[in-house]
Amino acid sequence: MRSFLGRDILSLRDWERMEYYRVFEVCDELAPIARRRRNSDLLKEKILVTAFYQPSTRTRLSTEAAMHRLGGHVVGFSDAKMTRAGDFYQESIKDTVHMLEYYGDVIAMRHYQQGAPAEAARWASVPVINCGDGWGEHPTQVLTDLYTIRRELGTLDGLHFLCIGDMRMRTMHSISYAMTQFDIQATYVAPPEMALTDDFKKELKERGLRFREADNVADVIGDADVIYMEPVVQADYTKSREEARKDRGRTPPQYQVTRDLLREKARAQAIILHSLPRVDELPPDVDSTRHARYWIEAFNGVVLRMALLALILGAME
Amino acid sequence: MRSFLGRDILSLRDWERMEYYRVFEVCDELAPIARRRRNSDLLKEKILVTAFYQPSTRTRLSTEAAMHRLGGHVVGFSDAKMTRAGDFYQESIKDTVHMLEYYGDVIAMRHYQQGAPAEAARWASVPVINCGDGWGEHPTQVLTDLYTIRRELGTLDGLHFLCIGDMRMRTMHSISYAMTQFDIQATYVAPPEMALTDDFKKELKERGLRFREADNVADVIGDADVIYMEPVVQADYTKSREEARKDRGRTPPQYQVTRDLLREKARAQAIILHSLPRVDELPPDVDSTRHARYWIEAFNGVVLRMALLALILGAME
Amino acid sequence: MRSFLGRDILSLRDWERMEYYRVFEVCDELAPIARRRRNSDLLKEKILVTAFYQPSTRTRLSTEAAMHRLGGHVVGFSDAKMTRAGDFYQESIKDTVHMLEYYGDVIAMRHYQQGAPAEAARWASVPVINCGDGWGEHPTQVLTDLYTIRRELGTLDGLHFLCIGDMRMRTMHSISYAMTQFDIQATYVAPPEMALTDDFKKELKERGLRFREADNVADVIGDADVIYMEPVVQADYTKSREEARKDRGRTPPQYQVTRDLLREKARAQAIILHSLPRVDELPPDVDSTRHARYWIEAFNGVVLRMALLALILGAME
Repeated sequence: MRSFLGRDILSLRDWERMEYYRVFEVCDELAPIARRRRNSDLLKEKILVTAFYQPSTRTRLSTEAAMHRLGGHVVGFSDAKMTRAGDFYQESIKDTVHMLEYYGDVIAMRHYQQGAPAEAARWASVPVINCGDGWGEHPTQVLTDLYTIRRELGTLDGLHFLCIGDMRMRTMHSISYAMTQFDIQATYVAPPEMALTDDFKKELKERGLRFREADNVADVIGDADVIYMEPVVQADYTKSREEARKDRGRTPPQYQVTRDLLREKARAQAIILHSLPRVDELPPDVDSTRHARYWIEAFNGVVLRMALLALILGAME
Repeated sequence: MRSFLGRDILSLRDWERMEYYRVFEVCDELAPIARRRRNSDLLKEKILVTAFYQPSTRTRLSTEAAMHRLGGHVVGFSDAKMTRAGDFYQESIKDTVHMLEYYGDVIAMRHYQQGAPAEAARWASVPVINCGDGWGEHPTQVLTDLYTIRRELGTLDGLHFLCIGDMRMRTMHSISYAMTQFDIQATYVAPPEMALTDDFKKELKERGLRFREADNVADVIGDADVIYMEPVVQADYTKSREEARKDRGRTPPQYQVTRDLLREKARAQAIILHSLPRVDELPPDVDSTRHARYWIEAFNGVVLRMALLALILGAME
Repeated sequence: MRSFLGRDILSLRDWERMEYYRVFEVCDELAPIARRRRNSDLLKEKILVTAFYQPSTRTRLSTEAAMHRLGGHVVGFSDAKMTRAGDFYQESIKDTVHMLEYYGDVIAMRHYQQGAPAEAARWASVPVINCGDGWGEHPTQVLTDLYTIRRELGTLDGLHFLCIGDMRMRTMHSISYAMTQFDIQATYVAPPEMALTDDFKKELKERGLRFREADNVADVIGDADVIYMEPVVQADYTKSREEARKDRGRTPPQYQVTRDLLREKARAQAIILHSLPRVDELPPDVDSTRHARYWIEAFNGVVLRMALLALILGAME
């Protein structure tokens, strides 16, 4: 297994089964720090640089919280408008990285352009963590998802995943790569214009993933052990806030997971994951069903990022 | 007396006299840390989550400074626009809290909606501190005010408070509840459209507060031991910056406290508090009078929040 | 030599030769902390307050990184819009400082108005570091430049500096004052409307600086040991983003430093400094020439600010 020391976390495309398990082991080791709510000193001598070119609540705050739980320090920005990168200068990734690499020991980057974190990693003397890049990937989110599933269901093998949402989204790419490393079957449900691309389907087939596509959640939810959701109604930031609000409540029923549907058709042990925030694909009355697991993901997201930071920065081997 | 360990600080409505004194005792104990400018390690193992949905300088920075003075860590956001809560998703308080509660050990929240921190506290596994909620309350500011008065005048009992400003404001609500727990008389002076509501006056009477209303500061300032001020000219954010500037300098004289008025009519020992920023209700030449105490409030505000954090998080009993 | 303990860093106008050397000595002492990427505990008990009224990436992040490398804490704001200073209230520097001074132990301020940090220092009980004030000065940037030059060329004496760009900019003022303290000759090249003012030229003459002005970089680059650059195309924030983009790529050739020009005319040992970000006065293919030193400045900028903070806060004598 490749060492995690100094490794960039850019994509799950090349991750092997054993690497996931190693990360989950370290998660289990570090989880008590978060659960007992007592920071450790493990990364006291280290600085995390956060470079968020797009707004983010969960990913940014959980990455920062993870660093603080390990006693570390954080510098960075959470809005490209507050930097020179977002203004007139349109500073190149290369120029930006040849600054950020000196301000800390690992860079966590979210960017609106696919590939930006990889471009950053090309030039940085410190490891780069992709915290979501455009339509690219979102490895730390999907590692959190998998860690949650393994904790909740005991295993990743032998499961059937139902992926619902916009298949162009970065989480869908990362989860698909991850599924190839386990004995997992997948069903994808998406509006036609948001379906898996032919190229991506070809790649998944070559990587040996058993999957099918369906039109309606109701037809296939009965097979699912894991219901993995993203919105299909996207924020359109060119619209005014008032206009945008009207877009809420427009998720077609075939892409929703409702309490009634779960009662009628879901397996008793099926669990629902959602990286949140949600629009109306997942109504609030699902929260109190036996299936909901999306809130505990916030806790697991801190633990997962603690493990990654500790491994990458050499505090754990 | 109820324990402070794990307690939400949402409203002063239900605070008892002894609870104020306990907080002030801890303030006196921790003040030397701030005065000597040497951080302690008391909250080194803890993380404060700041959730500021409205801009704030004093409250946010003093809460963060308090956490740092005690060696603690801070994560959070200072602008709703930088989060998913402020955009298209309009994420519910419940969903947001079921994320934030895992990122730290206490949540400090400012929100434009009255009751939002209380709603947050309903769902959070960690204590919530209300740092100002719409037209609701602002307990940490008013605790700072009271601590300042007790330090400056030696006592809270037997005093007469003159409250000037917009009585719909959250500080006015919190100070009114606080006054009911001490031997304090109150005079309120506000423009008619900003006066105390009938409901609130009824509540204050039921709680035994001796108070009256007056039209003009000049008529009543001679009775005051404490002159407690807020602006009566409000920022109108629907106006352009240039138009808004014209609103400055429009405070009617009967709601101003000037140097001349203080010389002519104020008691020698009377002190002026103002949570700042000010518009023109309190001209800068008052700053060098014997009455001004609003700047020392910034120092006391850090000490007060150190005490609250230490008590809530169990570092002091 | 004046003590650095508690000193404001506002301007290099009055800095003496020996003071620069003292700072560089402390830089050399602290540099291993940054190079080995292991934070020390030197300023663990201190809080830095950042008051950035204008966006900044390099200066803000390197100042914060310096504080963290020394184990310190940071509170502050990076956008005036997120404070009361930037809105309707237009809070005075005096009022703002009589708050910030209690939130930490040193204030690092960037402001769009020349003189604002000096005004802050007039009122603050803690030292103030000028992180760039309008068309005023930028001492920490220029100290970083000089430290870089001394490390790269071994000395500051006997050198010829070629300063290219907008001579109204704050870095140009600070570097000019600094040059008077060493055996340095200067050549300035700027568009006519951005030239040194008569008053400033008079002052530099009185301070004994040997300098000349020229129209075209190509004519004088052969004399330079240090090529010190700033853009001549300024961001015009009144223009739309699309219009502004058109301004890029408009630097007239006589103010550019290109790879060809360097090959033809520059001294072999000449080094190029640029505080970045750049527009197109310094094309990316210069990056791989022997002359480029602008990236290492990011590292040196952290070290320099570590030294200043340690000296000002009394952690080094």
